[in-house]
Amino acid sequence: MIVVIQCKDQVGLVSAISGLMAAEKINIVSMREHVDTQNNRFFARLVLQQPADVVVLRAKLESVLPDDALIQVTLQPEKKIIVLVTKEYHCLGDILLRNHFKTLGASVQCVIGNHATLEDICRRFDVPFHLVSHENLAKEAFEQELLNTVQQYEADYLVLAKFMRILSPEFVARFPMRVINIHHSFLPAFIGANPYRQAYERGVKLIGATAHFVTNDLDEGPIITQQIIPVNHSLSAADMVKAGKEIETAVLAKALQLVMDDKVLVFRNKTIVFDV
Amino acid sequence: MIVVIQCKDQVGLVSAISGLMAAEKINIVSMREHVDTQNNRFFARLVLQQPADVVVLRAKLESVLPDDALIQVTLQPEKKIIVLVTKEYHCLGDILLRNHFKTLGASVQCVIGNHATLEDICRRFDVPFHLVSHENLAKEAFEQELLNTVQQYEADYLVLAKFMRILSPEFVARFPMRVINIHHSFLPAFIGANPYRQAYERGVKLIGATAHFVTNDLDEGPIITQQIIPVNHSLSAADMVKAGKEIETAVLAKALQLVMDDKVLVFRNKTIVFDV
Amino acid sequence: MIVVIQCKDQVGLVSAISGLMAAEKINIVSMREHVDTQNNRFFARLVLQQPADVVVLRAKLESVLPDDALIQVTLQPEKKIIVLVTKEYHCLGDILLRNHFKTLGASVQCVIGNHATLEDICRRFDVPFHLVSHENLAKEAFEQELLNTVQQYEADYLVLAKFMRILSPEFVARFPMRVINIHHSFLPAFIGANPYRQAYERGVKLIGATAHFVTNDLDEGPIITQQIIPVNHSLSAADMVKAGKEIETAVLAKALQLVMDDKVLVFRNKTIVFDV
Amino acid sequence: MIVVIQCKDQVGLVSAISGLMAAEKINIVSMREHVDTQNNRFFARLVLQQPADVVVLRAKLESVLPDDALIQVTLQPEKKIIVLVTKEYHCLGDILLRNHFKTLGASVQCVIGNHATLEDICRRFDVPFHLVSHENLAKEAFEQELLNTVQQYEADYLVLAKFMRILSPEFVARFPMRVINIHHSFLPAFIGANPYRQAYERGVKLIGATAHFVTNDLDEGPIITQQIIPVNHSLSAADMVKAGKEIETAVLAKALQLVMDDKVLVFRNKTIVFDV
Repeated sequence: MIVVIQCKDQVGLVSAISGLMAAEKINIVSMREHVDTQNNRFFARLVLQQPADVVVLRAKLESVLPDDALIQVTLQPEKKIIVLVTKEYHCLGDILLRNHFKTLGASVQCVIGNHATLEDICRRFDVPFHLVSHENLAKEAFEQELLNTVQQYEADYLVLAKFMRILSPEFVARFPMRVINIHHSFLPAFIGANPYRQAYERGVKLIGATAHFVTNDLDEGPIITQQIIPVNHSLSAADMVKAGKEIETAVLAKALQLVMDDKVLVFRNKTIVFDV
Repeated sequence: MIVVIQCKDQVGLVSAISGLMAAEKINIVSMREHVDTQNNRFFARLVLQQPADVVVLRAKLESVLPDDALIQVTLQPEKKIIVLVTKEYHCLGDILLRNHFKTLGASVQCVIGNHATLEDICRRFDVPFHLVSHENLAKEAFEQELLNTVQQYEADYLVLAKFMRILSPEFVARFPMRVINIHHSFLPAFIGANPYRQAYERGVKLIGATAHFVTNDLDEGPIITQQIIPVNHSLSAADMVKAGKEIETAVLAKALQLVMDDKVLVFRNKTIVFDV
Repeated sequence: MIVVIQCKDQVGLVSAISGLMAAEKINIVSMREHVDTQNNRFFARLVLQQPADVVVLRAKLESVLPDDALIQVTLQPEKKIIVLVTKEYHCLGDILLRNHFKTLGASVQCVIGNHATLEDICRRFDVPFHLVSHENLAKEAFEQELLNTVQQYEADYLVLAKFMRILSPEFVARFPMRVINIHHSFLPAFIGANPYRQAYERGVKLIGATAHFVTNDLDEGPIITQQIIPVNHSLSAADMVKAGKEIETAVLAKALQLVMDDKVLVFRNKTIVFDV
Repeated sequence: MIVVIQCKDQVGLVSAISGLMAAEKINIVSMREHVDTQNNRFFARLVLQQPADVVVLRAKLESVLPDDALIQVTLQPEKKIIVLVTKEYHCLGDILLRNHFKTLGASVQCVIGNHATLEDICRRFDVPFHLVSHENLAKEAFEQELLNTVQQYEADYLVLAKFMRILSPEFVARFPMRVINIHHSFLPAFIGANPYRQAYERGVKLIGATAHFVTNDLDEGPIITQQIIPVNHSLSAADMVKAGKEIETAVLAKALQLVMDDKVLVFRNKTIVFDV
């Protein structure tokens, strides 16, 4: 059982939380907390040994925490996700493999593509694929079709696994901190289109990828995780794209693992990630 | 003020510790804990805002913790160290620079060399240098001279910054978990002499360095930190030595920073490191 | 067209090779060479623009190079591989995905498993799977069955993608420098069984994986590539296994890419890798 | 002896160069070349065994290379540098240490500071320090004073080791590709002031540093090398500055090593770095 808490900081919070667990005879397997002293904000994540009654535990936590506390108690950690794609297979393929072998920490409900390219690989893994083409559709109508498809399922998160359409603020606002994107760049460098071409032209010696929650501003939501790989003059722009795909796959996989394990808390435009 | 605790694990430890701080109106700036479930062992490190009375706080902690608890309360975190060297300058130079500019988190009391090579650089930084040559001396006599020199100072840690003599178990036993060594290899690979030659002969693609506490077994004490760098066929054994010096310097610097900040706890032959 | 050469070093080799190409009006897209001065050995890899007659070009190269020269001229770089597995899916899944989307640089002829666990995933990708169980078979008989299966196909390389049986020197000798293994450790540390358990017990701060050619000595063939990831006290031995799978997958993928691109030359027990 | 060449690409260049060396009985210890196919540009670096007559060798190379060839022949690789600083010691200290122990690959002629803070550490290493204050001076007058000081020495490169004044295009134009800067950021992210504050505000998970040649555009010259380190929510903006200093020191040291070994060629706004 995982408990995630954020609230305004005050003296005695750790004592209140751990005291409650001790009183309830619930063993704390691990506890991580962080205080953002600049913003006077408290964050914590607890792994508890005994499955307790979710509703009761939440009520007891509410009684000992400040009024503004956001408390999330998860008995069953497996999340449900919908994956949105365009044509590139590398991120989706990795997700489908992990999903198939039950190591994703989430269950893929369906895949939505604005091209049919990746329908076949979904079929091979017995995962429903929906083609929602953007062609000949205004953005609003396209997003309405996306929404209709999404709403056929229950989903905790939408994962943009190289989905090459920009979603409107209105669409994103329906899923606050529930849309995860893999950005093909080491943000904030090379925001926008063709980052590997930009990286090639600039002659950088490292390229990276960034997984982040999507907010209104393109490429500007809270960063979940980032990684880089070294490159040099011998790579063409095409080579950089190829190298970039490796790092994109790895970064998105890591981000999903963190989010699905309830290790990522968001406050304003930043994440607190209780990783190792 | 930093408090470091380890004891046998039991329900309610975090509650007991944080409850005490709340009762004493001491603000916990940060708290990290770890439970080694395999060995039923609890570890914690707290940074406290208000300087409290060290003796009183320790007594109160003792009253709420198990009898076997090891409690370390540090009001003034700056440690005192003695550095032992032979001829190579890279680790010592880095330490002397940081010491000079007060960014080491420790104060170098003196440097002891079994060669005079590094006397000059110590003199330039106004740090006492003692030549304790091993030549024409039995190991026991040599170590007695080392000991005599060490005992002229108060020192929390002895730092072997490329000190190329193997210390006897008897000598090391006088400073339990207080001797820090930089090993010129990615332990446990290439234990012993000429690790870079071994790495070159084996054709490895990574070389590394390991900072560890010294115990009776050569190169076998608890590991504090490790780093690696990529290498390839184009490096000669000499090039690997050169590359290795960079990584040795960085690893020892990192290890010292961790130890001086009381972030490293030791249990049996392993460390718990409360880094970022 | 790719040309790979190794021979004893002497003055004028680069001149002889590049002069030949200039005389034949063959454009050199890229050329990498390395001289092992300790062993007086010359290595080169050329990418040529115009497809030339393989037999003619080889003959001309032979005429200008020392008698001991090993010359490999590859018109069509796609290799054929057979993958051997046991039960773990992570390396095989990654290989099947890349194979399916034609980004492996090789074509998977079949998969051989000593358990049936991974038959289903092969079937989903329309790749032949052969169950060759080791149960109730002497090693010799088991390997004979493996051999019978392998010989149904043409294969340039056998890839041990978490194949948990140790192959005999006799078997390996049939495929010199053509058997690639992913070792679940940062060699030469933790040779042999249960490396993650060993790493956990030793309290290392990094774990890694090594891809290497298999020779007679277990875990001792020429290293192709290695990578590491940082770990700490918070990972259980099981967590280390999980983290290790990520790095194993990445390292084997990288090694296959290098070998399939003819970028890996072997001399005695070391590789020369003409990577970026 | 090191030879560095760049010119327009054409068939037979490697043959011409290596043929010349063979004819002159000069052994090529190592040779690296790169063709920028997009720009039809050839780059090469040769290490030659026998010291040849520099003037004669250059003339012979000119006779076999295209008219536009830039040829640099270096008999004695040790360069002379002048280091410009403000108040921060970390990069300068590292340079002074390496200079003192003759491992910099360059000789520090003097240090120029616009504050007196670092005079003492220079004095300790017997390196001349010149205070050239910018206070009460127009930029032009300040730079004229810098220039007067620089011109007292012969220097191959000016190294900006955390020199916090922006040099005018006119000043920089006097030293084309001869001014090296360490930028406290992973360019092109966080251009300009306070990059660590920017990184902290943005919640990035990696911070980096970039060493580059200075051109007219601030922070926009050819990148020599870059490195990053992982960070997380637990670091304050001040902690990021501290972590950044470690990476800045390492990156500048690496860049200087590459430049001093004549391993860095520049074409337009990009570098070709013939590293391992």
